Amino acid sequence: MKRLVIIGVGLIGGSLGMAARGRRLAQTVVGIGRSADTLRQALQLGAIDEAASDFATGIQAADVVVLATPIPQILDDLARLPALLAPGAVVTDVGSTKGEIARAGDRLFPGGVFVPGHPMAGSERSGVEAARADLFIEATWALTPTPQTDPEALNRIRDLARGVGARTVLLDPDAHDRGVAVTSHLPHVLAYALAALAGKESQTSPALLDLAAGSFASATRVAGSSPELWRDIALSNRTALLRAVRAYRATLGEVEAALERGDGDALLDLFQEGNLARKGA
Amino acid sequence: MKRLVIIGVGLIGGSLGMAARGRRLAQTVVGIGRSADTLRQALQLGAIDEAASDFATGIQAADVVVLATPIPQILDDLARLPALLAPGAVVTDVGSTKGEIARAGDRLFPGGVFVPGHPMAGSERSGVEAARADLFIEATWALTPTPQTDPEALNRIRDLARGVGARTVLLDPDAHDRGVAVTSHLPHVLAYALAALAGKESQTSPALLDLAAGSFASATRVAGSSPELWRDIALSNRTALLRAVRAYRATLGEVEAALERGDGDALLDLFQEGNLARKGA
Repeated sequence: MKRLVIIGVGLIGGSLGMAARGRRLAQTVVGIGRSADTLRQALQLGAIDEAASDFATGIQAADVVVLATPIPQILDDLARLPALLAPGAVVTDVGSTKGEIARAGDRLFPGGVFVPGHPMAGSERSGVEAARADLFIEATWALTPTPQTDPEALNRIRDLARGVGARTVLLDPDAHDRGVAVTSHLPHVLAYALAALAGKESQTSPALLDLAAGSFASATRVAGSSPELWRDIALSNRTALLRAVRAYRATLGEVEAALERGDGDALLDLFQEGNLARKGA
Repeated sequence: MKRLVIIGVGLIGGSLGMAARGRRLAQTVVGIGRSADTLRQALQLGAIDEAASDFATGIQAADVVVLATPIPQILDDLARLPALLAPGAVVTDVGSTKGEIARAGDRLFPGGVFVPGHPMAGSERSGVEAARADLFIEATWALTPTPQTDPEALNRIRDLARGVGARTVLLDPDAHDRGVAVTSHLPHVLAYALAALAGKESQTSPALLDLAAGSFASATRVAGSSPELWRDIALSNRTALLRAVRAYRATLGEVEAALERGDGDALLDLFQEGNLARKGA
């Protein structure tokens, strides 16, 4: 690969650039971004070889384009790409939801050169200053081709993901979204909700946060993530997340009912079920 | 202190023994337990100097007695202690709930030598094999005296907690229980419920657990804890936990309603509230 072009050099885009440069997966890694400061920082940190603030110029002669911005901008940029891409170029994205993006890709790239993807390697940190060349090692990188996706394009993106150390998983875009609704989006919602509740209660019980130990820290860790980013993800995966939140509230409703009855057996059953599932995960 | 007697040498009791021995807080640390294997292991790991399988013999000549078993056994042992204690001895416990235990202590120790306590230093691991001499360093150790508690007894237990490196906090037993319902017991319930839901859904969507990344691991970490222990804690703090579960389900209900309406502003408000509270914690 000659030119790997990354649009958005934050945590994911910056880490991908570092990893691709470190492993020499491309002759040149180009970063595109709207902020000159971020691009300068990405250059300094060794995340990219070249910076481009002009979208059309940056895309020129790209072999592989990776869209690594928040979802609303991925959708915008996806629409601008077909007119600019060189023949033979392939495109992927790293958005946390795939149904909406895959449908847009099918509409915009009838030749199937768009491969929707999702490296599951985020963190509550963000920005290129948090980027790491080893971010994807052993991480799961979901690829969600549609029937229209060109198998050759899929192979090239799969090679890129594996090249930076990830384990790839192929999934239908909607199956992906239903899955991450439970394993990623719901955990973020639960963390925000718990932190918000504790914050509210600490206003009347100041000692409350003194009593926050390890379980609270783990349960709220990802509430440190960007609220704007997660609003966008929640809206983009609204149907599946709504289903997951409802299912979860129903499960918690069983705990509530067991506590009301003082039913230790029912509590034990549910705790054991969770304990076993956790061990199997 | 001559003899520090620890009833129950698991994670907490064993770590306390190691820390007290390492810092020479007592001439002799005695472990009492029902399992000869556990006592032998505690001796080998350096958690205790002497083991006693007979309760009455072990308690003889104790200066400080620490009840470090699950809550039901703390309540049983508390009732047996007054007849066996030497004059001048003080007693504390490490149970995760305090209201029920403090009321039993007031009834059983009219002289006020029982000081209810709760070191917030557990983990999803358990047993003396997980014990560590540094477990309490920088940990919060809640002490929940009642109006009846002897101030001198309180000072001695406070010295012990500080002596092993903990930061002590004084609280009313019921305020403690309302606090930990939100900051510790609710996080455990949420983790069990999320792991149970994911386990159930993975039966029809086998790819689901492939999509479990860092946020799922954090959110379910404490579902690795003993289900029996947490059933006991949940029942012992039933009223406060029920209140916390209801409040949490109501907060999640706001997320559900916002998702139903596609209301990004409401989602952002709640996520920002959680994000801020997390940073303040």
